[in-house]
Amino acid sequence: MQASDWDIVITGGTLLTFSEKMDILENPIIGIKDGIIATIRTNDDPVNTCWQAKEIIDAAGCIIMPGLVNTHTHLPMVCFRGMADDLPLMDWLNKHIFPAEARFVNKKMVFDGALLAMAEMILSGTTTFCDGYLFESKIGEAALQAGTRAVISQGFIDFPTPDNPDSSKKILIAEHFFKKWQDISPLISPAFFCHSPYTCTADTLVSVKNAAHDAGILYLIHLLENKDEIDIIKKRYGKKPVQHLHDLGVLDEQTIAVHCNWLAEEEMTIFADLGVKVSHNPESSMKLAAGVAPIPEMLKRGITCGLGTDGAASNNDLDMFREMDTAAKVHKVTTLNPTVMSAQTVLKMATIGGARVLGLADRIGSIEIGKDADIILLDMNKPHLTPLYNCYSHLVYAASGADIKTSIIGGKIVMKNRNLLTIDVDKAMDNVRKIAATIAGTPTQLKSRV
Amino acid sequence: MQASDWDIVITGGTLLTFSEKMDILENPIIGIKDGIIATIRTNDDPVNTCWQAKEIIDAAGCIIMPGLVNTHTHLPMVCFRGMADDLPLMDWLNKHIFPAEARFVNKKMVFDGALLAMAEMILSGTTTFCDGYLFESKIGEAALQAGTRAVISQGFIDFPTPDNPDSSKKILIAEHFFKKWQDISPLISPAFFCHSPYTCTADTLVSVKNAAHDAGILYLIHLLENKDEIDIIKKRYGKKPVQHLHDLGVLDEQTIAVHCNWLAEEEMTIFADLGVKVSHNPESSMKLAAGVAPIPEMLKRGITCGLGTDGAASNNDLDMFREMDTAAKVHKVTTLNPTVMSAQTVLKMATIGGARVLGLADRIGSIEIGKDADIILLDMNKPHLTPLYNCYSHLVYAASGADIKTSIIGGKIVMKNRNLLTIDVDKAMDNVRKIAATIAGTPTQLKSRV
Repeated sequence: MQASDWDIVITGGTLLTFSEKMDILENPIIGIKDGIIATIRTNDDPVNTCWQAKEIIDAAGCIIMPGLVNTHTHLPMVCFRGMADDLPLMDWLNKHIFPAEARFVNKKMVFDGALLAMAEMILSGTTTFCDGYLFESKIGEAALQAGTRAVISQGFIDFPTPDNPDSSKKILIAEHFFKKWQDISPLISPAFFCHSPYTCTADTLVSVKNAAHDAGILYLIHLLENKDEIDIIKKRYGKKPVQHLHDLGVLDEQTIAVHCNWLAEEEMTIFADLGVKVSHNPESSMKLAAGVAPIPEMLKRGITCGLGTDGAASNNDLDMFREMDTAAKVHKVTTLNPTVMSAQTVLKMATIGGARVLGLADRIGSIEIGKDADIILLDMNKPHLTPLYNCYSHLVYAASGADIKTSIIGGKIVMKNRNLLTIDVDKAMDNVRKIAATIAGTPTQLKSRV
Repeated sequence: MQASDWDIVITGGTLLTFSEKMDILENPIIGIKDGIIATIRTNDDPVNTCWQAKEIIDAAGCIIMPGLVNTHTHLPMVCFRGMADDLPLMDWLNKHIFPAEARFVNKKMVFDGALLAMAEMILSGTTTFCDGYLFESKIGEAALQAGTRAVISQGFIDFPTPDNPDSSKKILIAEHFFKKWQDISPLISPAFFCHSPYTCTADTLVSVKNAAHDAGILYLIHLLENKDEIDIIKKRYGKKPVQHLHDLGVLDEQTIAVHCNWLAEEEMTIFADLGVKVSHNPESSMKLAAGVAPIPEMLKRGITCGLGTDGAASNNDLDMFREMDTAAKVHKVTTLNPTVMSAQTVLKMATIGGARVLGLADRIGSIEIGKDADIILLDMNKPHLTPLYNCYSHLVYAASGADIKTSIIGGKIVMKNRNLLTIDVDKAMDNVRKIAATIAGTPTQLKSRV
């Protein structure tokens, strides 16, 4: 018998694999080598019990599960977290968010904000995110530093932005962004993001989709976040937004429609037929009073749905555990049906479902041999997680991001016993506090401006 | 100048007083003596800067605020946490909860469950709760040990229960309970709880109310949790539940109606006129798909509303921070109005509002000189709470119970730097795990039975 040689071994605890059969293993031995899950055994396994590893993680008392996949973020918006709340949507956008973005968004703000957001996400169990913002390359650079998995999306909108004052150069920018990021790291995937049907012309929507198609990458779009969008698009094009996009030929398996709060039944049929994916962001849409996406109906029709937090200006945190809890509850009460959106359904959306949305399900979203090692450990030895009848129930209805103990991304430990290993968290907080002080025009540090 | 002599002094940080004017003080000095807030000054105050204290708490980087008031709990139900979820309400109740209660509720289960629940509540910032369950005296005993403030309610229901097999002896039981608890501790207030209009006869509702009135204590009742209740009561009494209770004379300023998810406008007028208080439990009602209480409409009419978590079998945690976040968001989206239930509105419900609901506003709910010292400190030096523009926003939309650092109840430190000082938390968890093992018929310890 030969000793196996692994980079990391996780032993003990309860493994929730999120495999097709949702297998659960007690006291597993998980061996990781070169970023890949090389073996999964149990202590009872009589063969190959001899092994050595550079790093051994004791998971006794822990749940071991795939890292969470956040399918929609605007990370640098952490710099605007709590700046404006409880306002009518158009006041919030036009009087607060858009002016702040026009004035304060620059490369440094994007990098610093994104790095702090990554600290928050890793601390709360997210190992993959899909982002769209301005100066998106800076988010890619922050992700490389943080060692987190990311889909980074170059954004397109038909008005001048700080990173693209001349909005006519779209295709050039798209090509440049794709070339820069296509092979830089196995953790990073580039994508293109058209802001919405009402802020992008038909020409923009189509030309960016063609560029995404040529590159073989994802195409994202905010869709039907608010009901008003239907009237705007009907007035402009004589049809509803989904039909408009369908007629333009931009809806397909590589398209992620974000929000879809007002998706009608016949539009779900279009989505199901074409394989369009959906990113569901319940907390943001609740806080902005935008609406509740008919996710149970979409799931029934076989539409692939993932979960997302949206940006921290409209949520106001990036904790996928809170998002899961809310997702389960809001659909039960709005349909008056407690059986919809079970804990397991929601957890699948936040793991393997999100991975499918991002086209990464062959590599992440479950813990199976041959997949990339994106793994989180939760410390279950806490009063609010006691007793334990059902792991899935606790993860959705009782756990929070603060229960994450250790996080591994691509086979690298990025957090151990709640200590971030790739980000200087004090420095990251300080950098964002300085930016916020400039925004608020007041000194930095803990200061109440209520 | 004479040195002041205090038991505890809190210095530094940002004090949110929740006084009438919602005063905020930077770098305060809060002196506590004999359980009472004896002084509140700032460092800039030129007089009386000379002081000494037995215990000094450095609150630099913290928010200091009143402890949270949870207006509705069934604490021992932590023993059933996650036992049954995502089920139709009647299956959940009749096939899982009621049978489990009939079989497993006893004095030991109530005490052990309540003590674990108190650990969870103190760890997440709650310093006062209002509970109703079986063997309620055991909850009083646990509260005395935990050093937490409590309204404990003797329950009444018109079928035999483990603690009251002969339901005809109500008034005797009520008198005994009141006499036992009326003067035992300044932290404990006894109350009476009639389960609901559909499980209590008119005679029970009235005789218990008379007993509560004679004792001068609170009278609680679950009301309009589900829509079905309207039909049941209409069929039985020819009128709607609120009119039924009103005609019986049980609605007044000392009555707390719990849930009120289906309270109609004309019923709000009755509540406002009579001064009936409301306990709002949004997460439980969402998870059970029971409904969303029209709280913004109630607040508009001047009805005093507090927040509650309900029991952990239907939530599934006792974290008032999650409850606040959800309360703010669910009303925005169901009314499609982002301006309702602002962060400050929700926080008031969870502090001074809850204190008013429980008739304790002269003693708790705000940090003011002469009030009892029920104070919590939150560590704001965390990525998800950075930057900080608005304390109220962060407390509702970004903070979680895990951010609580220190908790003081009645002038006694019950948690310091997240260490519980009055509860052996490992033992409390072990005790409940053993009970759960009996319930599930399987060995104890972390075990997945998904």
